[in-house]
Amino acid sequence: MANISPIGSQLPARRRGLISGPPLTTRFDRRLAKILVHATNVFYEKGYAAASMRDLARVSGVSLSGLYYYFKSKEELLYLIQKDTFATIVVRLQERLHNIDDPAERIRSLILNHLEYFLANQKAMKVLSHEDDVLKNGFGSEIAAIKREYYRICMELLDNYKRTRGLEFSSRTAVLSLFGMMNWIYTWYNPRVDANAKELAREMGDIFLQGIGASAANGSRKKRSVFSS
Amino acid sequence: MANISPIGSQLPARRRGLISGPPLTTRFDRRLAKILVHATNVFYEKGYAAASMRDLARVSGVSLSGLYYYFKSKEELLYLIQKDTFATIVVRLQERLHNIDDPAERIRSLILNHLEYFLANQKAMKVLSHEDDVLKNGFGSEIAAIKREYYRICMELLDNYKRTRGLEFSSRTAVLSLFGMMNWIYTWYNPRVDANAKELAREMGDIFLQGIGASAANGSRKKRSVFSS
Repeated sequence: MANISPIGSQLPARRRGLISGPPLTTRFDRRLAKILVHATNVFYEKGYAAASMRDLARVSGVSLSGLYYYFKSKEELLYLIQKDTFATIVVRLQERLHNIDDPAERIRSLILNHLEYFLANQKAMKVLSHEDDVLKNGFGSEIAAIKREYYRICMELLDNYKRTRGLEFSSRTAVLSLFGMMNWIYTWYNPRVDANAKELAREMGDIFLQGIGASAANGSRKKRSVFSS
Repeated sequence: MANISPIGSQLPARRRGLISGPPLTTRFDRRLAKILVHATNVFYEKGYAAASMRDLARVSGVSLSGLYYYFKSKEELLYLIQKDTFATIVVRLQERLHNIDDPAERIRSLILNHLEYFLANQKAMKVLSHEDDVLKNGFGSEIAAIKREYYRICMELLDNYKRTRGLEFSSRTAVLSLFGMMNWIYTWYNPRVDANAKELAREMGDIFLQGIGASAANGSRKKRSVFSS
């Protein structure tokens, strides 16, 4: 994961020469970050396929030719949004995990990290979910690599939990069920009704950890399952 | 729910006179059902916003004017696809629940019903997820009513389970987490790698039921939770 970092240092090589300071501190980076926010709103409202570069120019207040200074195509823009999101989530998770040893707490940390980012960036979440399979070739494979890395970290956290507790279940189904629980939030979350990220992470953490935790390989623990009562 | 039935009897009133036999047995219904399948494929490939009536005519092999005999607009087509899907899921669930008394088995039945339909209709699932908020006014509110009814049934199953087991948790977070687990499948399911609907329903049922089941209101049961061990 040495290559993963938030937007800035990961910009396409042909532009890397433009960046002199640390990530997000150059004028180029700051303006690009703003354009990404506007573009996310446009994709959120109109959908990627229906949004035009003209829409993006109008909303972001940058001329059409100005936009092409920051990216060559609408596809590259979607790539930058996706990379910014996934790379930020992965970097923040790694920072959080650095100081946590307990396997259950590490999974809770993953859930909190994911939900905090998602609830703070709900429009980006919808765009990422809906345009998940749009990017092809180089852009597509770079995003796929970050997502695989994120998935790998989650599988590792889960396998570690399984080992220390002597549990048995399909890690793949469990991890993808957890992603489903968390990612689906963009379709229903209402800040006036629903709990904040911390409380929601606790609730989903309870359901998930207790859900996988009851399937102990050990017979005596298995008896504790609600199914045998 | 007396009004909910699979496509056919729920066609817009202005066309209801065309239907003389039971649902799906008229020539009109059968041809419409075929058009819906083709339209689902087009929306799946191009997205709703980018798909045109011309695309739909070409793929379904029906002339443009022929299509307008079955529906007035692209929006009505999306409405028919959504209604067909949700109404079918709800009707099948009610049939299944008819003969099951055990509260846990009723929830497992909901999961199996949902996954069986989803895995057999994956393209429709993606279209429904992506175009969830496209329909407005009359079409939109009719679909919203069917979805509310489905949600209500699920909440009822969960509340019943909670009551009989003496459990305490947020039903809303739990039901929406379950929908997330199930609906997210369209992003990752691979029939060559993953289990069939029955096995997947068992795995997700285990995670979900054990997950909510461990949060017993009763103190002595609470001690069985993996968090206190």
